[in-house]
Amino acid sequence: MANKFGKLFTITTFGESHGPAIGGVIDGCPAGVELDFEAIQNELDRRKPGQSKIVTQRKEPDTVEFMAGIFEGKTTGVSIGFRIVNTNQKSKDYSHIKDQYRPSHADYTYTKKYGHRDYTGGGRTSARETANWVVGGAVAKQAIPDIKIHAFTSSVGNIHLDTPYQELDFSKIESNIARCPDAKKAEEMIDYIGEIKKQGDTVGGVVTCVIQNVPVGLGEPIFDKLHAQLGKAMLSINAVKGFEFGSGFEGATMTGSQHNDLFNTDGSTKTNYSGGIQGGISNGMDIYFKVAFKPVATLIQEQETIDKDGNMVTMMGKGRHDPCVVPRAIPIVEALAAMVILDNIMLDKARNI
Amino acid sequence: MANKFGKLFTITTFGESHGPAIGGVIDGCPAGVELDFEAIQNELDRRKPGQSKIVTQRKEPDTVEFMAGIFEGKTTGVSIGFRIVNTNQKSKDYSHIKDQYRPSHADYTYTKKYGHRDYTGGGRTSARETANWVVGGAVAKQAIPDIKIHAFTSSVGNIHLDTPYQELDFSKIESNIARCPDAKKAEEMIDYIGEIKKQGDTVGGVVTCVIQNVPVGLGEPIFDKLHAQLGKAMLSINAVKGFEFGSGFEGATMTGSQHNDLFNTDGSTKTNYSGGIQGGISNGMDIYFKVAFKPVATLIQEQETIDKDGNMVTMMGKGRHDPCVVPRAIPIVEALAAMVILDNIMLDKARNI
Amino acid sequence: MANKFGKLFTITTFGESHGPAIGGVIDGCPAGVELDFEAIQNELDRRKPGQSKIVTQRKEPDTVEFMAGIFEGKTTGVSIGFRIVNTNQKSKDYSHIKDQYRPSHADYTYTKKYGHRDYTGGGRTSARETANWVVGGAVAKQAIPDIKIHAFTSSVGNIHLDTPYQELDFSKIESNIARCPDAKKAEEMIDYIGEIKKQGDTVGGVVTCVIQNVPVGLGEPIFDKLHAQLGKAMLSINAVKGFEFGSGFEGATMTGSQHNDLFNTDGSTKTNYSGGIQGGISNGMDIYFKVAFKPVATLIQEQETIDKDGNMVTMMGKGRHDPCVVPRAIPIVEALAAMVILDNIMLDKARNI
Amino acid sequence: MANKFGKLFTITTFGESHGPAIGGVIDGCPAGVELDFEAIQNELDRRKPGQSKIVTQRKEPDTVEFMAGIFEGKTTGVSIGFRIVNTNQKSKDYSHIKDQYRPSHADYTYTKKYGHRDYTGGGRTSARETANWVVGGAVAKQAIPDIKIHAFTSSVGNIHLDTPYQELDFSKIESNIARCPDAKKAEEMIDYIGEIKKQGDTVGGVVTCVIQNVPVGLGEPIFDKLHAQLGKAMLSINAVKGFEFGSGFEGATMTGSQHNDLFNTDGSTKTNYSGGIQGGISNGMDIYFKVAFKPVATLIQEQETIDKDGNMVTMMGKGRHDPCVVPRAIPIVEALAAMVILDNIMLDKARNI
Repeated sequence: MANKFGKLFTITTFGESHGPAIGGVIDGCPAGVELDFEAIQNELDRRKPGQSKIVTQRKEPDTVEFMAGIFEGKTTGVSIGFRIVNTNQKSKDYSHIKDQYRPSHADYTYTKKYGHRDYTGGGRTSARETANWVVGGAVAKQAIPDIKIHAFTSSVGNIHLDTPYQELDFSKIESNIARCPDAKKAEEMIDYIGEIKKQGDTVGGVVTCVIQNVPVGLGEPIFDKLHAQLGKAMLSINAVKGFEFGSGFEGATMTGSQHNDLFNTDGSTKTNYSGGIQGGISNGMDIYFKVAFKPVATLIQEQETIDKDGNMVTMMGKGRHDPCVVPRAIPIVEALAAMVILDNIMLDKARNI
Repeated sequence: MANKFGKLFTITTFGESHGPAIGGVIDGCPAGVELDFEAIQNELDRRKPGQSKIVTQRKEPDTVEFMAGIFEGKTTGVSIGFRIVNTNQKSKDYSHIKDQYRPSHADYTYTKKYGHRDYTGGGRTSARETANWVVGGAVAKQAIPDIKIHAFTSSVGNIHLDTPYQELDFSKIESNIARCPDAKKAEEMIDYIGEIKKQGDTVGGVVTCVIQNVPVGLGEPIFDKLHAQLGKAMLSINAVKGFEFGSGFEGATMTGSQHNDLFNTDGSTKTNYSGGIQGGISNGMDIYFKVAFKPVATLIQEQETIDKDGNMVTMMGKGRHDPCVVPRAIPIVEALAAMVILDNIMLDKARNI
Repeated sequence: MANKFGKLFTITTFGESHGPAIGGVIDGCPAGVELDFEAIQNELDRRKPGQSKIVTQRKEPDTVEFMAGIFEGKTTGVSIGFRIVNTNQKSKDYSHIKDQYRPSHADYTYTKKYGHRDYTGGGRTSARETANWVVGGAVAKQAIPDIKIHAFTSSVGNIHLDTPYQELDFSKIESNIARCPDAKKAEEMIDYIGEIKKQGDTVGGVVTCVIQNVPVGLGEPIFDKLHAQLGKAMLSINAVKGFEFGSGFEGATMTGSQHNDLFNTDGSTKTNYSGGIQGGISNGMDIYFKVAFKPVATLIQEQETIDKDGNMVTMMGKGRHDPCVVPRAIPIVEALAAMVILDNIMLDKARNI
Repeated sequence: MANKFGKLFTITTFGESHGPAIGGVIDGCPAGVELDFEAIQNELDRRKPGQSKIVTQRKEPDTVEFMAGIFEGKTTGVSIGFRIVNTNQKSKDYSHIKDQYRPSHADYTYTKKYGHRDYTGGGRTSARETANWVVGGAVAKQAIPDIKIHAFTSSVGNIHLDTPYQELDFSKIESNIARCPDAKKAEEMIDYIGEIKKQGDTVGGVVTCVIQNVPVGLGEPIFDKLHAQLGKAMLSINAVKGFEFGSGFEGATMTGSQHNDLFNTDGSTKTNYSGGIQGGISNGMDIYFKVAFKPVATLIQEQETIDKDGNMVTMMGKGRHDPCVVPRAIPIVEALAAMVILDNIMLDKARNI
């Protein structure tokens, strides 16, 4: 249940980090999309472990293998099957926690829900799942080439990039391992993450995403407002604690006379507190939103916890984990955004009978 | 499309504020729930316009009429049909804006999406729809009497209630028209809203919701994490700009050693930064989250805007609108929360074959 | 659960024959469809009880009341709410069976499933529900005016109309109360139903439906083949025991060399054993199918049955029931067919991004 | 779209007969089901090509490979990923039809729908897809071991097995390659299929399926009646033209006094024209239904057809195809039935909150 995302363009996934493979089925992709496989792999590379000194040192090539739904380089319109073979499943890394519940992980809740414990790498709760989403998003992006989606790191701990996104150069996002388009802030973030890592600790952060060139009219009224779909997507990412779009929580402190976006004569607006969405439907302005990530729960420090029998024990993480997930979360946020936008374009087309 | 909410316990709705009636179909409600109709009406009364000096003065009795699915006072297990007749549809209130797009409303986006304009009261974009949700939520609450759901106003503009919710007395929420359980803060909020109203302006605010006594194990992995479902629900409410649960955006500034919730030997946790949900699944601790509302867009002030032909015109709101939606949003937040929890209890039961 | 039909164009319904009203929500109807309300009422009149001597003599005006989703005579693109008030709920008709399970009705299965008995008119199992579907279908028909849907009575008991549908004049269907386009067969059927009625007995029959002018390409591969959707829809009608399309069960006796539909150069086929659907997708030829209805279970004869405590008792139907449902089933079959076709047109459009 | 089957227990599939692999995702399987992998493979072997002289001589080992969702031999409650590698994709077999539309195949409709032609083995229209369903069904069967599902060949062409199923010995079904439990009829069928094959022709047939030990109360009212779900499932199988349950089309010729199933005092019925389902809900009696299969369209005979430019051409099948699909369809019918029953057991459990 609930391993499916989307309404018309959908992805249904499977996979644990320590099993033979992860993968999924992309259903509903329009026919005739000419796929750039290198671009898909490139998205996976942006997410993959071991890519820099500030992410987990686990090494996985994360090579996607398509099994169906593509003929002569183009999507056929039927379901696309794919998988990513797991090549580096060090199950022994986890044997020491077999009977322990790690604090702020899902060990306890999964065990209570399903009545058993898959202790190898967290089973399905592992963020390795998000590699599947990156594949789905990479395909979606290619179906809607006119739409530009850029996510970037806007804060790590208390280091905030406060520059309005309009003044940023998105082409700089990939120029540093923090994926922050401001070189100076990026350096600060990288240094801070390095320090945190040295302490065996972890830190949270925020990702900002901007979607440009969205047609007017996307989103469904009432229960599938475009921002509600985006919010649900982002809240599905491991470690996410919050979502806001447009003026967000700041907007709650404002008055209407400050907040209203007045029109230009062409239907665009002078300000964009609405974040590109009004009444749940895109208005053609940039869509932008923020996603808050908590610090990773696995520490390379001693922590007290309980085992399955309720005994208090001492544990210490040994796996290779991220001191800060935000830099690797960037392509995940973009992938989910791309799938939401494509799905809504399809839903919108359906009305034009 | 997308007038349906939920997976097993669902509500499908219809209705415009200025048509004959609003209403809907509640599907999947378990059989045998003995309904307290007064309690249902009471929830509607908490939401209804005209209830106090700080909300819209529009008067609607908002009496729900059940048409099917109930026999001898109990739910029968089949679909429940209901409606709320509109009794006070002053369509003339809106004739002056027939050809104008109100700033930060959905007039422009709806017109572009559907190719026509229902200018009477905003058509389906009106928050009157939320009365339907309150009915659904009131039924859901009665199916899960052990679960306690309390929402309250935690900020209006820059007036913030910073007391941890554990120190608040929820029985005080209904004791003032701001629905803030702290009497002193409530007074400040009421005064401030009154002042804003006098200026013909509006102001945003934040609602906090606490769900207690939730069993361990609710929520689906991957794409229907319990908090993602709650987030989508809340982001569906008119004027909402953000959602956070547990530590929320603040959590993004913390380190793992600060943020991890250490276990007690009974499986409960010493802190609750997780907000009662780990890996998308409830852990038995209190679930709590915040919902940010922007200021209402209708001002009783002159604003510049455009008409359907792109001409710049001056408009001034004349309808009876809320200076701050937050007090009336409280029962809506609770209703959606109740439906999400019941739906997930049902999903969870389905596994126990 | 499962009071919803369709994927993009959907109808969600409620209502018991002996409650205040039946009704539902039509969601996903494209905007701008100019509705002919008289035509909608006319479809309801074709289904309504009391319309002729060979159907139940229960009298219900069956007037549909739209509550939302229509503005200035046109669909707005949002959900359409409607209801049909029950005006003739003689609950006393059913009091004698309060504790008895009628043979071949759903009394026993519903009671076991839901743990209670709604003895008034069969609760939700009543075929009165199908009036809701006729409303949905009538709206759908108007959204796809080019598509021609004709259902008719092709057998009653052992009286079979064997003429190929191509030789029938569909304009004669409504010229007799049996809704059989062959006047002579119609007379035989009417006489036979009259005779059966006199005996307090009932009889089954078959409805044939022909859908013309369907574009090539409707239907989804694998699990939503066009004929599988039509089949599921028809099997949802009360009393239906079978569905076949194209060559149907007869096709199972044929050889491939007899059965293959050879092409004309324009892509049409010389024969149409395929019934207008190949590989689950419409090929532009006429779609035709048959639906088998069992005899109504309520007899005006003494029958032995059991009560809720398992005692053997004698019962005799007293309600006003149909001796043969087939004539009234015609508009129901057409309504479901119309909704399936519209839904698939919308699904097909969604691909053309 | 529509590569997903089921509501809570679902299967989502991919794969073409001539690509690298077919496979899918089983979602919603309850946790803790101990899997007998040999039994799963055995079901695939019953379906696989090359198993006897009366089926296609194409050889595929059809070995299923599970990639996720199983830990220490048991289902974990999360999604199960699997694939079956294609080992014998003779694409050259199809090159001669690259530009031709085979009569009564889906070549024409798929090409028109998707705008391209996957000529290798029919792409997604190939019945190879059904191997995926057999995997899903084999897992479902193991989750509901008490329920007995037996399908068998009840006719081939005009050779009919008319014995009531109650008098058949289901343990004999697998004792002959026709999968007909009556040895004498089986021999006739085998001889006839052999003869048809010699002529390069094909023939249709009927499969009967009996489901025993079903609890009372399965099935949803209105649009997901148990028989409507079964019907839709069966109509999804390649080459199916009809579905009937209980008395079926024969029931349409009967009177109510003949057809009503009178009760025994224990709630069982003396006859079972209802086919184990009343009002869409199982009544605890045997569920039985028939599925009609048309003759396979590929003939090893010359046929006239058209090419993509509308030219009349002569073609002759060269692939390795089945002279009669019915014997291989038996495990497919059972698999779909098992998935429908399990899904409905889960839906039914969801109500018991």
